[in-house]
Amino acid sequence: MLVVMEATATPEMVAKVCEEITRMGLTPHPIPGALRTAIGVTGNKAQVDSDRILTLVGVQDIIHVTNPFKLVSREFYPENSVVDVDGVKVGGPEFVVMAGPCSVESRDQCMIIAERVANAGARIFRGGAFKPRTSPYSFQGLGETGLQILAEVRERFGLKIITEAVDTETLDLVASYTDIIQIGARNMQNYSLLKKAGRSMKPVLLKRGMSATLEEFLMAAEYIMAEGNRSVILCERGVRTIADHTRNTLDLAAIPYVKRMSHLPILADPSHGTGKKGKVIPLSRASIAVGADGLLVEVHHEPENALSDGPQSIVPDDFDKLMNDMRRLAAVLDRTCA
Amino acid sequence: MLVVMEATATPEMVAKVCEEITRMGLTPHPIPGALRTAIGVTGNKAQVDSDRILTLVGVQDIIHVTNPFKLVSREFYPENSVVDVDGVKVGGPEFVVMAGPCSVESRDQCMIIAERVANAGARIFRGGAFKPRTSPYSFQGLGETGLQILAEVRERFGLKIITEAVDTETLDLVASYTDIIQIGARNMQNYSLLKKAGRSMKPVLLKRGMSATLEEFLMAAEYIMAEGNRSVILCERGVRTIADHTRNTLDLAAIPYVKRMSHLPILADPSHGTGKKGKVIPLSRASIAVGADGLLVEVHHEPENALSDGPQSIVPDDFDKLMNDMRRLAAVLDRTCA
Amino acid sequence: MLVVMEATATPEMVAKVCEEITRMGLTPHPIPGALRTAIGVTGNKAQVDSDRILTLVGVQDIIHVTNPFKLVSREFYPENSVVDVDGVKVGGPEFVVMAGPCSVESRDQCMIIAERVANAGARIFRGGAFKPRTSPYSFQGLGETGLQILAEVRERFGLKIITEAVDTETLDLVASYTDIIQIGARNMQNYSLLKKAGRSMKPVLLKRGMSATLEEFLMAAEYIMAEGNRSVILCERGVRTIADHTRNTLDLAAIPYVKRMSHLPILADPSHGTGKKGKVIPLSRASIAVGADGLLVEVHHEPENALSDGPQSIVPDDFDKLMNDMRRLAAVLDRTCA
Amino acid sequence: MLVVMEATATPEMVAKVCEEITRMGLTPHPIPGALRTAIGVTGNKAQVDSDRILTLVGVQDIIHVTNPFKLVSREFYPENSVVDVDGVKVGGPEFVVMAGPCSVESRDQCMIIAERVANAGARIFRGGAFKPRTSPYSFQGLGETGLQILAEVRERFGLKIITEAVDTETLDLVASYTDIIQIGARNMQNYSLLKKAGRSMKPVLLKRGMSATLEEFLMAAEYIMAEGNRSVILCERGVRTIADHTRNTLDLAAIPYVKRMSHLPILADPSHGTGKKGKVIPLSRASIAVGADGLLVEVHHEPENALSDGPQSIVPDDFDKLMNDMRRLAAVLDRTCA
Repeated sequence: MLVVMEATATPEMVAKVCEEITRMGLTPHPIPGALRTAIGVTGNKAQVDSDRILTLVGVQDIIHVTNPFKLVSREFYPENSVVDVDGVKVGGPEFVVMAGPCSVESRDQCMIIAERVANAGARIFRGGAFKPRTSPYSFQGLGETGLQILAEVRERFGLKIITEAVDTETLDLVASYTDIIQIGARNMQNYSLLKKAGRSMKPVLLKRGMSATLEEFLMAAEYIMAEGNRSVILCERGVRTIADHTRNTLDLAAIPYVKRMSHLPILADPSHGTGKKGKVIPLSRASIAVGADGLLVEVHHEPENALSDGPQSIVPDDFDKLMNDMRRLAAVLDRTCA
Repeated sequence: MLVVMEATATPEMVAKVCEEITRMGLTPHPIPGALRTAIGVTGNKAQVDSDRILTLVGVQDIIHVTNPFKLVSREFYPENSVVDVDGVKVGGPEFVVMAGPCSVESRDQCMIIAERVANAGARIFRGGAFKPRTSPYSFQGLGETGLQILAEVRERFGLKIITEAVDTETLDLVASYTDIIQIGARNMQNYSLLKKAGRSMKPVLLKRGMSATLEEFLMAAEYIMAEGNRSVILCERGVRTIADHTRNTLDLAAIPYVKRMSHLPILADPSHGTGKKGKVIPLSRASIAVGADGLLVEVHHEPENALSDGPQSIVPDDFDKLMNDMRRLAAVLDRTCA
Repeated sequence: MLVVMEATATPEMVAKVCEEITRMGLTPHPIPGALRTAIGVTGNKAQVDSDRILTLVGVQDIIHVTNPFKLVSREFYPENSVVDVDGVKVGGPEFVVMAGPCSVESRDQCMIIAERVANAGARIFRGGAFKPRTSPYSFQGLGETGLQILAEVRERFGLKIITEAVDTETLDLVASYTDIIQIGARNMQNYSLLKKAGRSMKPVLLKRGMSATLEEFLMAAEYIMAEGNRSVILCERGVRTIADHTRNTLDLAAIPYVKRMSHLPILADPSHGTGKKGKVIPLSRASIAVGADGLLVEVHHEPENALSDGPQSIVPDDFDKLMNDMRRLAAVLDRTCA
Repeated sequence: MLVVMEATATPEMVAKVCEEITRMGLTPHPIPGALRTAIGVTGNKAQVDSDRILTLVGVQDIIHVTNPFKLVSREFYPENSVVDVDGVKVGGPEFVVMAGPCSVESRDQCMIIAERVANAGARIFRGGAFKPRTSPYSFQGLGETGLQILAEVRERFGLKIITEAVDTETLDLVASYTDIIQIGARNMQNYSLLKKAGRSMKPVLLKRGMSATLEEFLMAAEYIMAEGNRSVILCERGVRTIADHTRNTLDLAAIPYVKRMSHLPILADPSHGTGKKGKVIPLSRASIAVGADGLLVEVHHEPENALSDGPQSIVPDDFDKLMNDMRRLAAVLDRTCA
């Protein structure tokens, strides 16, 4: 940690800050400069609660050197984590595609879509039974009926299941049906939900919040891991920016960055990441090329009748093309793809 | 609603879209243009679920004309709503200041601060008993002990109380102690929490999310009101932008905008809105000048020892100055201030 | 300056970085930490070109302590600069309002508007003769004819004149007519234009770029001052953010921040800062309250016929109200206003 | 175009807007709705200057249906434009890589780098002779000496040359040496420079501005084309967002979007798009995969001694790897790569 003093700070102010640092059990190292003094701080095992120092007279800024995260950090676990989803390995050599409708709407809808995505090479079926919607007047999902349909998909097509848990009340119910618990972007900092997901022993897929920095994203994953759950999969789904041609701006540089900082696997979601069906295939290609461990893609056989997110859902024929592209690219990127 | 066709759309595609609109019980009005055709849609009582149309061949875009919100809209309730907090009226002529520490840390801390802010003219005491923190290793609040301290503040100083509810599990407990339930920025789209707050009959203060549009902000308030709770107070607390000199960018234009769109009262939070104690007073002045109905301000008698948000907390002497400024400005802005 | 080493950096890598720092004529101060080593650097008179160090093996990050700006910095000139615009003092106790149409459209238009804004208390008349427009097919301004009209306004109403210079070719022509040369947001980093404005001896008003940090904004002013021109007025005009209810988000916290970092005066532009005529008056009130030294406001007597920016132009009757508000607020903010 | 009336607009207000539309030579089509009236407008050949209508009483908003650009639009020229750079075709089947140092620093530096990038498969050599720098105290480029060095690189290695023109004064000089004139992100809306580049008959590479929407980006290209120059190459180089782990956020979805809207070729710049050498190769892979027509990459043999942008420059050995990756990916993406 480095404490930057104001240019006008007196030697007395510097001395007082050094005293305070010492009182906190740390060691101050004053570094006088031409214009101002900085104070290096050593001896901290974890991140210091620096707010205390920031409020002292003459202090201009505090600069952290040590990252605040631990369990998610590659500095603590240097190897790649591979999350085992009942036999499907996420984060290993295989590029894993999770596909399905935004919402579970009916048994028929799911069976039709599941058959197509299973045949095309998807390993995991996605579909929301509990839906967080911007408007209270929009379709909110089928609830447990939806979960039962997902369980039937698993049995019939051998696909694993991922579905979202939107609150602590229903998380256990969701966990009793699903193979992966999804935490959505709006809940990335819903800490009660993260902790409860951390106490479940099911794998958790955590989506990046709409305007979350990567530090906040990794800290949210830290909440889950701190409860003892090591099976965390991250998912980049775009951030909100000034760009207005897509629903969100897919931040693909986040993927190699997370890979360097953390041992956790990370997927891309080109459906939410663009909000436009016409951009899903090119951004899927970019995602595998940049180093993602897999995809989360919305597929619907009748997007014009979808109860949610129709405009960003691709049809099964396009999903076939997408999987073909993934296989061709995987071959030259030293990965496998079903 | 307006459906914009692609320039290359054929008359058949236009006809198919018109058919679909008719099937939905609405009336299409094709408007042929030099370059492309647009189709006006009438007959909708509420917002149409337009995703269905957006997926039809030849459709480029859908433009909504009708706002999606109802209960929060000034079009439905043209008068200003005044929220009665056990006798303190928020949204009326009085500019209401809510002040106190970020976190309830101890009985002594709260009594010292409460005495000062009560004397200076604050009407409502703020303090977190349950704290949502970015890191799982940071101080998470005193819990019910904190709520008891707040209740004692109310009894002793005649201040009303506002404190945050962070999850559905603890909302009832929070509601049993507090006068206003605060929903924080990170939970603005935690719909289970919004609904539960809506079923409580206590006033709710809803903070704008970190990257929420005003439409999303008002829709979140709609969730609360749709459950029957009409006592909603909004709070602008800054959005995340490219500006790096403050923690957030306080979007003061949001205040007159919300006033025009909605009947609900709206406060400003210059503490989170800037993250810098030195900016709290000037931004408080700007907030009353732009038309806010009050402030939510962090005050701590020893910011250097605060367990959270010390750098953005002002000391009681500065709060005295702030209140003086508010009174002087209220006088020329046709408002009152205690 | 602080060099942060990677957690995996070896002692040899640290030694190599220290050598390099010494070779640059500076002094390294290694600070070993629990997790990684940091190296404090002293001896630099100005900002070091740190890119050289950032590329060495084992270096993770460089943190600058010294600000990169000099002439604009309050650390170098502690007093407020007051810019004398031919007798009108900007940056002193008077809150100075500059008002007029977006574009000079005709002699009549300017005379009608100028009479009204002069009577209402504006001190400086604004109007574009050369207009930077997003589309090559939009009205681009009257050119020198426009400048002549502005000169006539000055003579007839005693108002000073501000108008934009859009390129180096026409800057001298603009400077020969105007009292203040305006550099627009799109040209904030047009360094050839900044330098030429710096060699002119006329006061320069520099608008913040659409996504400029305050450091970049102040560095752009440094370009002007480095050429010898000390009469620089800054202008906050909003930044582009995720907020879509206004054209830009007026970043009012920038004003007290700039006041602390720099001795230069700073105005607010609520017209471009919101893009909505209905928000100009409330944001003008907020601007004076937050500490701005004045305003730049668009006024048009027939906004519906304006050739540019009609939707953000207020009518003269509203400008009267605005000036009344400014006078009432100035009285309680220890400022004067004409 | 669609005019949206306020919910409170009277029939008289609607009638007045219709009159005004008629007076403008257009045809109004009122569409009464449950809550408010909208007015479709037809008869416009180009985009209407709608500001006039937006200022009428009772008008809430204007929605444009027709795109404002013409010459750049794929609706006007449906085929892909291929820009011929003295024999190197940009926008055709070949994926074209432009590489070299940020700044031309010396003859030796350029010859060393040029030999390596030519051998690796680059077709065009990049290097700045005139540099726009945030600080007036930073290295500003070698000027004409730099251009002469570039000309020698062309002669010796058969590479074509791209270099930036920073102002109208030096554009002709730059054009007399270079094969492609680069317009940088900071000058994307420097219209005098765009027009002058449009009057030159050299190909122009236009970089997207730091916070430019794609509409603004394409309108800037329209400025160049409107002067008669059809050889325009676009370049996505990232936008400024809340993400702080990279210098900019490379908006790869912009590439398929631009391809759909416009016939112009578009490259990606992963060096500025990330600002981190470690992210250049993965983002280059993502760029070819998403459909870019080529790359603009910074390469330096001694990044630690680079006078600018060292931290984002890769070394020649890494560039060899990058080109290998491009060739492997081109093979499965139906493109060629040297």
